[in-house]
Amino acid sequence: MTYDFDRETASTVAGDGRRSGVLSARWNIGDNPNGGYLTSVALRAMGEAVEHPDPLSVTTHFLRPGLGGEPCETVLEVLRQGRQLSHVRASLRQQGEIRLELMAIFGDLSGGSGMDAARSLPPPEVPPPEDCPPRSPGAQGIPLPILERLDVRLVPPREAQEPEAVLRGWIRFRDGRPPDVAALGLFVDSFPPSPLTVLGSVGWVPTLELTVHARRRPAPGWILGQFETRDLDRGRMIEDGMLWDSEGHLVAQSRQLGLVMRRDP
Amino acid sequence: MTYDFDRETASTVAGDGRRSGVLSARWNIGDNPNGGYLTSVALRAMGEAVEHPDPLSVTTHFLRPGLGGEPCETVLEVLRQGRQLSHVRASLRQQGEIRLELMAIFGDLSGGSGMDAARSLPPPEVPPPEDCPPRSPGAQGIPLPILERLDVRLVPPREAQEPEAVLRGWIRFRDGRPPDVAALGLFVDSFPPSPLTVLGSVGWVPTLELTVHARRRPAPGWILGQFETRDLDRGRMIEDGMLWDSEGHLVAQSRQLGLVMRRDP
Repeated sequence: MTYDFDRETASTVAGDGRRSGVLSARWNIGDNPNGGYLTSVALRAMGEAVEHPDPLSVTTHFLRPGLGGEPCETVLEVLRQGRQLSHVRASLRQQGEIRLELMAIFGDLSGGSGMDAARSLPPPEVPPPEDCPPRSPGAQGIPLPILERLDVRLVPPREAQEPEAVLRGWIRFRDGRPPDVAALGLFVDSFPPSPLTVLGSVGWVPTLELTVHARRRPAPGWILGQFETRDLDRGRMIEDGMLWDSEGHLVAQSRQLGLVMRRDP
Repeated sequence: MTYDFDRETASTVAGDGRRSGVLSARWNIGDNPNGGYLTSVALRAMGEAVEHPDPLSVTTHFLRPGLGGEPCETVLEVLRQGRQLSHVRASLRQQGEIRLELMAIFGDLSGGSGMDAARSLPPPEVPPPEDCPPRSPGAQGIPLPILERLDVRLVPPREAQEPEAVLRGWIRFRDGRPPDVAALGLFVDSFPPSPLTVLGSVGWVPTLELTVHARRRPAPGWILGQFETRDLDRGRMIEDGMLWDSEGHLVAQSRQLGLVMRRDP
């Protein structure tokens, strides 16, 4: 395993239905590991337990922050292995406490099933990555070690009559690792929160729940992301995300329930 | 408990972390109970185990069909009880097999948290329920006993240049039970699949995963729903739903991953 992401999401069998590893601090947002990275660690452990290759759907509940640099254990249960689909649940634990609780459905994205009719969500027209500034830790003042692992470029906001709570950008691994289905859950959680574009600065946007649906195996190259918050009510927001690969195919959709917290003075 | 929905989602303690009940066949779609009804049974059992009143988020994985008229058991685990939120997971079992696996986050929708800024999704302009035809079992030829429990009216499709995979309609309980947060997971799953409007007849649209985010406690009266499938790729679809109450407030969002199966000749 030559790439950072593969090395830093690895785990080994630690008993019946248990895999152990160590969380890296290199994917941190501030003092704690990025939620997409944590999801990737658990999801990979879950994938080791089933025969189907692709996580079609994964839902993560974030109960407590993860601890970078500390050991972790994924306790998992295969709920059903069918011909076309496998269902798995898991808890990611550190220091005796559940940090993440997950459910996933694995299948095979190389083939189809059912009817062939297609409806698609085309990518937005945006400037190429070279013309987009990199994400910087400056905007919220929180150190972002994760930006040494991921190259994130932000598309400048469009001029609009009303400000949109939309964020668009490009993402890829810094070490040249090509994108794959396993990376999509990390990518959807590695952009700034989209409400920032209309609210200005906010203090903290903790994710309560994140669901990622992988739709296709991505082609090599940059991934384009678009994230939008259309529903923000009394401090709770629903953010919808989409990822497209370099060939313009939709490769994932995501939705998260998050809290929008005040910035402390 | 005077209403059907309350009587037919009830369960009693059957041991540590277990509640038992009987699934009704009165909420069937064809030969099996509606997935939203099954979710409601499990979610109610989960809610009995925590102090927070409102399921802010519930994700259901459908592993096997439920069996109407048969006993069921909900095996649940409270993962965390915090000051603002509770996390619970559960399996709904019948005849020794997991039918549904669920995760839920409970909180309190009567108050806010964090920032007060709001972005909302307004309801579409549609004819009132009196001017919309009732959902009928005829369209797909599948018996719909659930329509004796729920009054579902379908908004006639808009004239559009390209057909939209959008379905809009009204819903309420037939016995006068007012809508509440507990009913929203049933309501989002009680309309015909939205791809029908563009695909014509399809054989079967089984849901693999359904996530419902309750956003507000609904006001009394009809609930208006809108469901759209913008992403249908090789037999797998993502359908997004929204529910509004009689005062025009968005009360829930939903998303499901489903399969679109061919109709057998």
